[in-house]
Amino acid sequence: MGQETDAPRAAAEGPPRLRGVLAPVLTPFGPDLAPDPRRLAAHCRWLLSHGCAGLAVFGTTSEANSLSVGEREELLEALLADGIPAGRLMPGTGCCALPDTVRLTALAVRRGCAGVLTLPPFYYKGVSDDGLFRSFAELVERVGDRRLRVYLYHIPPVAQVGISPALVERLLLAYPRVIAGMKDSSGDAGNTRTMLDLFGGRGFDVFVGSERFLLAGMRAGGAGCITATGNVNPAAIDRLFREWRSPEAERLQAELDAVRGLVEKVPLIAGLKAMVAHHASDPGWRTVRPPLVELTSAQREGLLADLRQARFAMPGLGGR
Amino acid sequence: MGQETDAPRAAAEGPPRLRGVLAPVLTPFGPDLAPDPRRLAAHCRWLLSHGCAGLAVFGTTSEANSLSVGEREELLEALLADGIPAGRLMPGTGCCALPDTVRLTALAVRRGCAGVLTLPPFYYKGVSDDGLFRSFAELVERVGDRRLRVYLYHIPPVAQVGISPALVERLLLAYPRVIAGMKDSSGDAGNTRTMLDLFGGRGFDVFVGSERFLLAGMRAGGAGCITATGNVNPAAIDRLFREWRSPEAERLQAELDAVRGLVEKVPLIAGLKAMVAHHASDPGWRTVRPPLVELTSAQREGLLADLRQARFAMPGLGGR
Repeated sequence: MGQETDAPRAAAEGPPRLRGVLAPVLTPFGPDLAPDPRRLAAHCRWLLSHGCAGLAVFGTTSEANSLSVGEREELLEALLADGIPAGRLMPGTGCCALPDTVRLTALAVRRGCAGVLTLPPFYYKGVSDDGLFRSFAELVERVGDRRLRVYLYHIPPVAQVGISPALVERLLLAYPRVIAGMKDSSGDAGNTRTMLDLFGGRGFDVFVGSERFLLAGMRAGGAGCITATGNVNPAAIDRLFREWRSPEAERLQAELDAVRGLVEKVPLIAGLKAMVAHHASDPGWRTVRPPLVELTSAQREGLLADLRQARFAMPGLGGR
Repeated sequence: MGQETDAPRAAAEGPPRLRGVLAPVLTPFGPDLAPDPRRLAAHCRWLLSHGCAGLAVFGTTSEANSLSVGEREELLEALLADGIPAGRLMPGTGCCALPDTVRLTALAVRRGCAGVLTLPPFYYKGVSDDGLFRSFAELVERVGDRRLRVYLYHIPPVAQVGISPALVERLLLAYPRVIAGMKDSSGDAGNTRTMLDLFGGRGFDVFVGSERFLLAGMRAGGAGCITATGNVNPAAIDRLFREWRSPEAERLQAELDAVRGLVEKVPLIAGLKAMVAHHASDPGWRTVRPPLVELTSAQREGLLADLRQARFAMPGLGGR
């Protein structure tokens, strides 16, 4: 916000780059499965005051691909109207259809978001780097705004269509001011290192896609992590981000892994929503959109019992 | 068309069921990558007059997942305005987001289309049959129109999310009048037989997803095929559909396979577009949307040479 007019160079290049812990913010739904902007904004505020440097709204964990383009636009406008700072937002904008990706990206840029996290088009499989380059090139050209800052979203286990080093190289050569980094959700620490070794010196920020890889990622020169469990455990993840050079780092990593291990015993998105629902005393938070399903009560009770035993808490969440 | 009001039972149940050869109609684009409704309608007319019983517009081959919902709506309206009969149309309507799938499906039903061909939501992988059942159930309930006729689109090589026999069973039990059949693009003749053995006696029509399986599918009780190469070779494929019981059937199948084999030497969608471009003397037909790419000139020249040698023709295509 406040950068919509032709402004001096610094402003024209957008807000400061995000580093640290970003949460792909869970999207709350009403009983009719409509997204609820009020509860979303409240969760965003909790995240920003408990360790999140930024909010990767409309990510995989946000069930964003189960939202229409219009729903995402309305939610983004509602968050901004509610006072969530645009400079802390990195909305997901990558759709199967180029016009949708352009529309969501252009809105994010107009509103002054810190960047966009963009999936490649993911319906057609086995597509070439030529075709993916052309997708991103059309996006950059059509948005046509020098404030645009694209983070490439590499999540082959879900999208099945990935971002290769050769593709990053071509994009950085063509659009060095625009291609700002990557979220690497490959689950492959070797891939993160390759991306950092090849492109880390060229203003290309790599976020690991899970806090399991946070310490390794920081040691390799990473910018932080964008992680599902950032929705429930942001302060502890942020502490490792800030203290990764300390002698405590290995222990902090092990503690993060232990919490994540408990959540990963159940389907992740439904599990995280059950945790927010429990700690916020708001059972409606459990609702997911199809094709996902809520946890069974046995799954939910098992998860909450595990977390109690581990003395896990989400302070301040129930107070709103 | 003409069935938008509360009508007598026969009309309320929609137009006659489609059987035979359906083409997932290629979508022509202009130089700016905008879809071209005029050339699309012309191609639809050619298909209907050269062997296609119906038009599965907005399928995989149509690059429909590279079109926005609004673009698909505009194209459907343009086809109907251009005189393409709704009763011959089976538009693809399955998107990742339920509101999009509902919107496209509701439009098709309001306009009197013969049915809709619906992908499961395909972003999230490893989802449960419970979640997929809930997706289709929400679709049926939200559209809420007894003219709705859903053909389930099973294409695991691309969507990665498939339709299991157990899911079909549940859907048929819940919505016997609505769940009309399947396009089986698994490439697995055993799966087609399973679906026909289990559900063929219950008004569940199975179309194979390639003419390679047409003869086997018809012998197992299938309803025809919905096939990419129906865009270029519809008359010959329709001949096998009509004559599958004749002594010539094996030879006709072999001839179809030979033509398909030539096209499959190159990327299929770009290859089919190159064929239409060549036979219609309209090079603009070659254009594909990213993430697909056009054939190289070497690929194109090789394909056209192969087809000339095989004496392949598309009569009447250049005449418009």
